[in-house]
Parts: sequence; C-alpha cells; structure tokens
Amino acid sequence: MQNFDVVIIGGGPSGIIIGVTGKKQNPNKSFLMITEDEKGLVPCGIPYVFHDLKEVSQNAMGPKPFIGAGGEVLIDKVTEIDISSKILKTQKGNEITYGKLVFATGSTPTIPTFIKGYDLKGVGYIKKKYNYIEELKGKTDKAKNIVVIGGGFIGVEVAEQLAKYQDKTVSLVEMEEYCLYRAFSNEIAQKADEIIRNSGIKLYTNSKIDEIIGENGKVTGVKLTNGNIIKAEIVISAIGYKPNTELATKAGLEINSNGAIRCDNYLRTNKEDVFAVGDCSQTIGFVTGRTDSIMLASTATAEARILGYNLFGIKLLRNFVGTLSVFSTEIGGMAFASAGAIEQSAKYANIDFVVGKFTDVDRHPGSISDSNEMMVKLIVSPRNGAIIGGEMYGGKSIGELINVVGLAIQKEVTVYELLSFQIGTHPLLTTAPTKYVLIKAAEMAINKLI
Amino acid sequence: MQNFDVVIIGGGPSGIIIGVTGKKQNPNKSFLMITEDEKGLVPCGIPYVFHDLKEVSQNAMGPKPFIGAGGEVLIDKVTEIDISSKILKTQKGNEITYGKLVFATGSTPTIPTFIKGYDLKGVGYIKKKYNYIEELKGKTDKAKNIVVIGGGFIGVEVAEQLAKYQDKTVSLVEMEEYCLYRAFSNEIAQKADEIIRNSGIKLYTNSKIDEIIGENGKVTGVKLTNGNIIKAEIVISAIGYKPNTELATKAGLEINSNGAIRCDNYLRTNKEDVFAVGDCSQTIGFVTGRTDSIMLASTATAEARILGYNLFGIKLLRNFVGTLSVFSTEIGGMAFASAGAIEQSAKYANIDFVVGKFTDVDRHPGSISDSNEMMVKLIVSPRNGAIIGGEMYGGKSIGELINVVGLAIQKEVTVYELLSFQIGTHPLLTTAPTKYVLIKAAEMAINKLI
Repeated sequence: MQNFDVVIIGGGPSGIIIGVTGKKQNPNKSFLMITEDEKGLVPCGIPYVFHDLKEVSQNAMGPKPFIGAGGEVLIDKVTEIDISSKILKTQKGNEITYGKLVFATGSTPTIPTFIKGYDLKGVGYIKKKYNYIEELKGKTDKAKNIVVIGGGFIGVEVAEQLAKYQDKTVSLVEMEEYCLYRAFSNEIAQKADEIIRNSGIKLYTNSKIDEIIGENGKVTGVKLTNGNIIKAEIVISAIGYKPNTELATKAGLEINSNGAIRCDNYLRTNKEDVFAVGDCSQTIGFVTGRTDSIMLASTATAEARILGYNLFGIKLLRNFVGTLSVFSTEIGGMAFASAGAIEQSAKYANIDFVVGKFTDVDRHPGSISDSNEMMVKLIVSPRNGAIIGGEMYGGKSIGELINVVGLAIQKEVTVYELLSFQIGTHPLLTTAPTKYVLIKAAEMAINKLI
Repeated sequence: MQNFDVVIIGGGPSGIIIGVTGKKQNPNKSFLMITEDEKGLVPCGIPYVFHDLKEVSQNAMGPKPFIGAGGEVLIDKVTEIDISSKILKTQKGNEITYGKLVFATGSTPTIPTFIKGYDLKGVGYIKKKYNYIEELKGKTDKAKNIVVIGGGFIGVEVAEQLAKYQDKTVSLVEMEEYCLYRAFSNEIAQKADEIIRNSGIKLYTNSKIDEIIGENGKVTGVKLTNGNIIKAEIVISAIGYKPNTELATKAGLEINSNGAIRCDNYLRTNKEDVFAVGDCSQTIGFVTGRTDSIMLASTATAEARILGYNLFGIKLLRNFVGTLSVFSTEIGGMAFASAGAIEQSAKYANIDFVVGKFTDVDRHPGSISDSNEMMVKLIVSPRNGAIIGGEMYGGKSIGELINVVGLAIQKEVTVYELLSFQIGTHPLLTTAPTKYVLIKAAEMAINKLI
C-alpha cells in the first residue's frame, strides 16, 4: 500500500495545474496524479487537429511540468474510493492512501441516446482522449460527406476546420435560430452564422435531428424532423459535455442539480480533505449568482491555481466570488468573444441593463493593410453604470480585448470610469484613440444613462 | 465680431474629441474650432506614411465628425487672446468672443538648435503638419542614405519604415545604451534593439551627434562625437516634442516647469473658463504622482472625452487621478508595449517593487502556425501586491494585452487577485490557459512575496 500526501485524479489542464502549483508550494509533500491516458490533449485545441494542426500529436499535452516539479504519475483508473479511511483502489490493483484528494475528472461528451442511431459505426464524439481523436481524425480524413450535430463552440470549430478541405461536404445542424446562441446576442450570432456559411459549411439552423440513419450498422446520414436527409459517412455529435462524476457519486460526494460535484468557493467538497476542480466541479455564475455549468479550461485552471496554493490551508484568498465565463473563438478568420452577461442571459436572470455598442476598424488609419471591422457591445447596469457583460467581434486582438472587459466585470468597473480609462493605442495594433471601440461603446451606454 | 459659446484652438485628436463630445452633450451651444491646417494627420500614423501607407493622404484626419455634430471650423491662426474680456484675434483679422476657451494646441518637435547644422536643407522633423510631411516624404522617397536622430518611438518607427526600402541605407543614432529606454527595462529594450538591427537599420547606440554636416547649405551627413561620419542626403531629427504653449504663455496662462499649461484634474487652467487638454497641458504621472510629460494621443483623447462632458459643469467625475502612460509599438513584426512604472522609473521615483516575469508562446499549442514568443513582466508593490507597471513583447495581440495591464494598474488590481482572475483563451488567439503569460507573471511575483 502506497501513501501520498496528495492524490489528484485526472491529468487534464486543472489536474496538471493543481499538481504543479501544489507541489511547488509544498515541496516536502508527496504528490501523485492518477490518469487513465498516457497521452493527453490540449482540450480547446482538439478542433484544430482536424485541419490546421495536421497531426493529433501537435496537440498533445502531458504531465511533464508536474513530473518536472517532483510529482509522480500513475497511468491507471481509480475504481473505488473509501473516503472515511482515505484509501483508493485502481483497475490495475493498486491500493493507495492519501492525505488530500482532488477530483479533476473533467467532463465527457453528452451522448444523444435519445436519438435513434446514436450508436452506429461512423458516429463520433469530441472526447478528450488522444487515441479516440486520432482514430476519428483518420476517419474524417477519408470521408467526403460529414455532418456535425450541434452549433456550439466545439461543433462550429470542428465544422469550420473540416470545411477547409476542398473535397469534403460539411453540414452543421443546429436546433436554435443561430449557432453560438448561448454566448452571443442575436445580431452577433447572426454575423457568425454568415461567416460559417461563407466558410463553405452547409448550415442548417432551426433544424432538429429526427434520427441518425444507417445501413448494416454503419452511418449513411441524418434525417431532420422536416424529413430532409443529409447523407454522410461520418456524423460528429457535439451537443455538449457533462461533468464526469461517476466516481465521485460512488464515493458519496454531493452532486448538484447540474450533475457537478458540489463545492465551496475554495473548491472543498462536502467531505473533509476532498476537493473538486475544473469541469467536474460546481460553478456559481459571477453575474447571475446562480449555479451554472461553465466548463472552460480557462476557469478550470484559475480554480486549480488557487487550490494549488490552498491545499494545506487558505494561503491566498479567492478574490472573485463566482466564475465568469469568457468565451472566444475564430471562425473563417474573424474572432468572436463574449464575457459575463449577454442580453439573453441578463433577461433570463432578471437583471436590468442598458446596451452600449460601437463599430469601427481595429487599426488606424483604417487603410493599414490588415485592418478588420471590430464591434464591441457592453451590457451595463443602469443603477451604477457597472459593466456586467460584453460581446465583440473583429480581428485576432479580440482574444485579448475580451480580457480587458473580463477584468472590468470582475473589478466592477463602471462605464463612467472607462471613459477616463487610459489605454494604449498604435496604428498597427489597435483602433484609433479617438474612437477606441471599447471606450466608445461605454460612451454610448453613458449617453443612455445621463 | 462673432460670438461662440465654446472656442477650441487646435484640430488634432483632442481638439476633435472635445468638439464632438462637447457639442453632442450641449447641442444648443455654438462650437468653433480654429485650426491652422486645412488637412490634419493621425499623429501616431505619421511614421507609416513613409512606407506602409504609401500616401500621406492615407493618414489624413480632419474635423469632419465635429462638423457632422454641428460644430464650425475656421482655418486661421489665433494671434492674440484677451482672457479678461474673452476676445481673440486671428491672423486673417477675425475677432471672436467666447464663453469657454479650450487650448488643444498640441506639441511641436524639439529643434536641436544646440547641434551645429540643425538648419541645413535636408534636415527634417516629424511635425504634425500635412503639407510638411508630404514634402518630407517626397524627399525621403528620393534619398538613398538617411540618418534618423533619436531612438524613441517616433525615431524607431520612422527608421523601421524607411529601412523597408531595399535601396535605402538607414542609420539610427541614439545617445543612450538602448533605444526606447524610457519605456522599457534593459532586457526588453535590448530585444527591441536586436530586432531594429535585424530590420536592416544601422543602429548606433551610445552615440552622440557632434554636428550635422553639409555643403552649400545642404546636408551631407552627421558627424558623431567619436569622429565617425555617417553620410546622408536626408537627416530626420526625432529627439522629442515640447508642448506648444506660445499662445497660452502670451495670454497669461500659468506654465509648469515642463513647459506645459498648468491645469487641474478637470483640465481647468488658472483662468476661469479656460481649459487645456492634450499634449499642451500638464499631466501628473499616475504611479509617481509627479508632474510628467506624457504626450500621447490616447491620454489626450481620454482627457478630451471627460472635458467634453464637463465643459459647462462637472457631469462626469474623472475617476483616475493622474495620467497613466501606456505605450505600444511594432518593430519588424514584433509588438512591444509598456504601461505605468518600469524598473528604471520605479527606482527613480523611489518606489519599492518586485518583478514577476514569464515567457511562453501566444497561441496554444505552440504549433499553431502564427504563434510568437510572448513575454510579460510585471512591476509589483511588495506591500499589498498591487500591479504598478508592466512591460511585454510578442505578436500583435500585445496591443490589447497591455490594456488589461493598464486597467489593472488603474484599478489597483493585485497579483493575488490576478491569480484567480478569469480569462478567455483560445488556441488561435491567446496563450494556453495553463500558462497564460500575464497570470504566470503574477504568480512569479507572488512567489517572491509569500
């Protein structure tokens, strides 16, 4: 029977960050990471293995930094945990005792068992499993007709990548009026859909799958509820993820109504010395204050960093209460991003708001050769002018501009403050200082408030 | 005799923003802008007319938005102001009375009258004057050998642009050990110098001009104090700017020791109903609390926006006391930026600090085709962990990432907060969430503090 001061279950981003940060802070404690897979993947990089990265190996991620910091790794599967006696058992017959236990078991794709044909050969999922994705890529490389089900970030990104091959016909099926409707208000989602269509994807919105059809156990296409059939040799389902909490449930941890491990602001579960972090753990929405299902590597690693310092007592206070979702992506060369509340989510949470928006170009003068149209929309509380959300599209710098908005939300910056906020601008890098889009959007909101 | 409620002297970025914002907020008030030049220039775009923009006309900026908002423009030069009777006289013989007067007279290049030969034909300056720059461009287009004096932002950018012509030999002369030494600590300035050299510029640092030499009143080169001669048909001096306050001085406004118009946090001068904004007005350093000479279009327009709302009484509080300098540029395809204190300026202001820094790539995985090395360095107060400065280099997204740091400084965000700060990341747009460079730099600082 081996003993470790800290055992981490899972080798994804939060498992690695917990391990590295925790071990560096506690060099005299022994750390073990148990992971089922020898090779891991950068989760958000998975869509790009289908085209841009060329090889799955280009998207590999492993526990090397953790091992470098002095941690040990066991490739195995935990099958049983006795929380009261602090013992866990594995598939390969290991028995390990621990001082602190961290669940970083991540999430798994939702399998649409409610759709007939979900289990046909040729139906794939974006699992965060190296070998599985390598096999799926092998199949898509050969396929001529591919259907992607689900127009969330993963579905859109996978479809966009596959559509870059001239010889493939890629169809994307989304139930709602627009793709990405959870992260963007209609006008921006509509813009994204336009670009999705221009990227050569056959986009079917307002469309529901009736069944996945096949012959001899092999997929041949999908049938929509309106009767239309889209033929395909490969169907990829990307309708969402759910927290991977099978083991936690079995071990007796409390699970919330979203299926995530319940834990407090310091990632402590209802059992002493047991923590949960990342996709498998509960999140509270920063703006809404409600239990939310935010599953992002960025929020997972933010949690993991804090927990790394706090494993043996709270050394660093967690300053932001609640998890802010910040999304970004690029479709057909245009970047889209959002943070915090959007119009729909603010309405749903019954939060009063005004909108300020502004559009210009992201270089100045606009005649700079790589300039793109840029739009920023801010969601603002009319009471004190605090920024509670933002959406934007434009060139690649959107990827960082959304983090200005993210910080503004987390620090409760008001549009009044933003108006005198001093920014850096440069012709080759940003909008003009005279019409810096973020500040102009704040000004548009102010003009509705004063 | 004409009368206007508001008269703005100057048609640069702050003049335009004051005019547009002020007129929109006060549609019933009459606004006049008096500017000497029919056509204006985007100030920070000037270096790029020498190559990238091809034509000076591509960098034009004018008072169109102000006229669109209902303002009037007079192309003329104010020659005399009687502050007590609120009357001003112009070169063309206009006499105008005003209710409120705004100085937005900008800055002019420092002319090195202390260097022999400064007035030879072929010695040029980066004046913010359309016709002058067009003429200078005409000359540089024809020149084979050009010397730029001064390795600040403008000198470096002009030299970098001119060096893009295969048939020109461009030399850059800087007195200090490194170019851009005011905005960057040595290690980053050194990196910039490396790129300057790789851009085909002959860089002479630690080098002082003894005299600008010529024949028959025409420049033929420069002589350094070590006796070396660099030949040139055109010499461009870019050794700095000084506030343009001739008129203000004559009108009796108070001028500070940096030569700028003294004014308070709401841009009010020592005379009632007279304001000063932008390069001609005084700035107080955000971090140092000292009078500073920050002349940036970004800070000028931030001031102008606030003043636009506050011309007829303080409607919007100015939330940030002091002006934060945020610099960014791109040299040879690599972006450099800084905000607030850097190591030298913190030492000079006798401010305690620790440094946290981190280097990685700005995409994830790093195998994404357009990834660049990215480095972030944070200057942190050891007392409370507040971020007081930052420097960075990397790809173009640096242009917005520096604004995350700028907001952090202005909102007194600590490195402890930054550690749980939730960011958006995306393979095609940013560093990996596991090692988001800004947060890792904060972590490095924390590890020195706890």
